Amino acid sequence: MNKMAQAQRFMEAIPHAKALGMRFESIGEGEAEMRMDYNENFIGDPQTRVIHGGAVFALLDSCCGAAVLSHPDQRGLTATIDLRVDYMRPAMPHQTIRAIATCYNVTRSVAFVRAVALDENAEKPVAMASGAFVNGA
Amino acid sequence: MNKMAQAQRFMEAIPHAKALGMRFESIGEGEAEMRMDYNENFIGDPQTRVIHGGAVFALLDSCCGAAVLSHPDQRGLTATIDLRVDYMRPAMPHQTIRAIATCYNVTRSVAFVRAVALDENAEKPVAMASGAFVNGA
Amino acid sequence: MNKMAQAQRFMEAIPHAKALGMRFESIGEGEAEMRMDYNENFIGDPQTRVIHGGAVFALLDSCCGAAVLSHPDQRGLTATIDLRVDYMRPAMPHQTIRAIATCYNVTRSVAFVRAVALDENAEKPVAMASGAFVNGA
Amino acid sequence: MNKMAQAQRFMEAIPHAKALGMRFESIGEGEAEMRMDYNENFIGDPQTRVIHGGAVFALLDSCCGAAVLSHPDQRGLTATIDLRVDYMRPAMPHQTIRAIATCYNVTRSVAFVRAVALDENAEKPVAMASGAFVNGA
Repeated sequence: MNKMAQAQRFMEAIPHAKALGMRFESIGEGEAEMRMDYNENFIGDPQTRVIHGGAVFALLDSCCGAAVLSHPDQRGLTATIDLRVDYMRPAMPHQTIRAIATCYNVTRSVAFVRAVALDENAEKPVAMASGAFVNGA
Repeated sequence: MNKMAQAQRFMEAIPHAKALGMRFESIGEGEAEMRMDYNENFIGDPQTRVIHGGAVFALLDSCCGAAVLSHPDQRGLTATIDLRVDYMRPAMPHQTIRAIATCYNVTRSVAFVRAVALDENAEKPVAMASGAFVNGA
Repeated sequence: MNKMAQAQRFMEAIPHAKALGMRFESIGEGEAEMRMDYNENFIGDPQTRVIHGGAVFALLDSCCGAAVLSHPDQRGLTATIDLRVDYMRPAMPHQTIRAIATCYNVTRSVAFVRAVALDENAEKPVAMASGAFVNGA
Repeated sequence: MNKMAQAQRFMEAIPHAKALGMRFESIGEGEAEMRMDYNENFIGDPQTRVIHGGAVFALLDSCCGAAVLSHPDQRGLTATIDLRVDYMRPAMPHQTIRAIATCYNVTRSVAFVRAVALDENAEKPVAMASGAFVNGA
C-alpha cells in the first residue's frame, strides 16, 4: 500500500517514534493502527517490568495524530490540543502494544479523536484516550 | 536532602525515566519538581526539532506520581488512573523541560494532581496536566 | 421490566434529574440509555435556542452513573471521580437528547465509563464523555 | 462596574443559567467569578441533599466561558470544545457555590481555561475543571 509506506516513512523521520519502535499496521480514512514492541528501556516499574504509561501515551498520541491526518476533511497539519488517557490495567510485560485510533469528528478548526491501547488480550484494553487536535493548514 | 536522594534513586531504578534523563529538583509534602534535558532522541517533529508530546507527558506523569507519593495522606502505592494533558505551545528546542506537580487532594482511594511543564520561558507554560491517581497500600 | 421500573423510580427521586426531565430508555449489564426532552429552560444560547452544555453534561453524568451501578462487578455505591466531555456540535433545538453509556471496565475501586449524547441525527454525535467513577460499598 | 452589569445582563438572557440562579461576582481580563445559591431543585442525592454534579458543571462551564470572553486576546465568540471536571468532595447542602475561572492561554483558535468550584470551606475545593474553548470571531 502506498499510503502505508508513506505513513511508515513519515513515522521513521520522527526520532522519538523511531526510538520507541512505533510502526504502522494500517491507515484508513480517519483511522490508524500502530504497534510498538516491548522494550526493556520502556520499563516504568522495575519490579513488575511493566512499561511506563508515558510510552503507551506516546503511542496513543502518535496514532491519534495519524488518524487525524488521514481524515478526508483534514487540512494538512495537526498538533495535539489536549489528550486524556484512562489506564485500565498494566500492559503485560514482553507483549507488543497496539493502538487503534479513530478521528470521529472534524470541525473547521478542531478534530476529535478516540483511541484504545491493547496488548495480546484484546478483550481488556490497557488504556483508552480521547482528545482534540488542531485541524490546520 | 535525604528525601531528594531517595527520590533520585527511585527515579534511576525506572528504566524509562532514566532513558528520558529525568531527575528530581525538589520534593515536598504533596509537591514535586522534575527536570528533563533536551535530547535529539525525543524529537517529535523533524522540521522544528520540537520534542514529542509523549516525552513531555512522561515527565508530567512521573512528576505527578512523585507528588502523590510525597503526600502525607498517601498510603504508599500509586498508579495513574487517568491524566489529561493540555498542550499550550511547542517546547523550545535545546531547552530543559521542568515539571512542577501538586497533589492537591487525597481521598480514601483517589489522589488528585495538577502539574505544569515549562521550558526557559516560565511565563508561558508548555503544557498543563490534571489527573487522578490510585491512593493504595 | 422490573430493572427499568426500579431505575426510573431511582431517577425520579433525584430532584435535579427530575427537574431536567430525564427518563430511562433501557438498562443492562453495565449499559444504560436515558433521554431528556427539549425544554426552553435549558436554553444556553438565546439566539440559536441551543440547550446549555450543562444540561447535556447532567444527562451524560447521570447516564454514566446508571451504567456503573448496573455493572455486575459494581459494589453498590458510586460517585463521579472525574468526567471529560467533548462537544462536537450544538444539539438541534426542539429535539430530544439521548445518552448511551457503557461501563467498560471495573477495578477494585474505580469504574471506567464512556458515553455519547445524540439528538435525532444519530450519525453525528452532539457530545461524548469519558470518566472514572467510584466503585464503592 | 459597567463590565459587571453587562456580564450580568448577558447571564440573565441565558435561560439555563437564569434557571440555575447564576450571577457574576467579578469579571476581569481573562478572569471571572460566579455564584449559585443552593436550591432544592438541584439535589442529586435525596439522602444527603447534595446538589447534582451537573449543576456544579453548568456553573463551572459558564464561568469558564465568561473568563474566555473577558480575555483581551479573545475574538468575540466562544463555545466549549471540551471540559474535564474532577470532583473532590460533595458540596455542603444549603451553601452557595462559587466558581472562579482563569483563561490562562489563548492561541489563534483555542482558549485554555481552568476553574475551581468552592462552597463556604474555601480550603477544600468541591471540584476543579480544565478545558479548551473556541476562540472565534
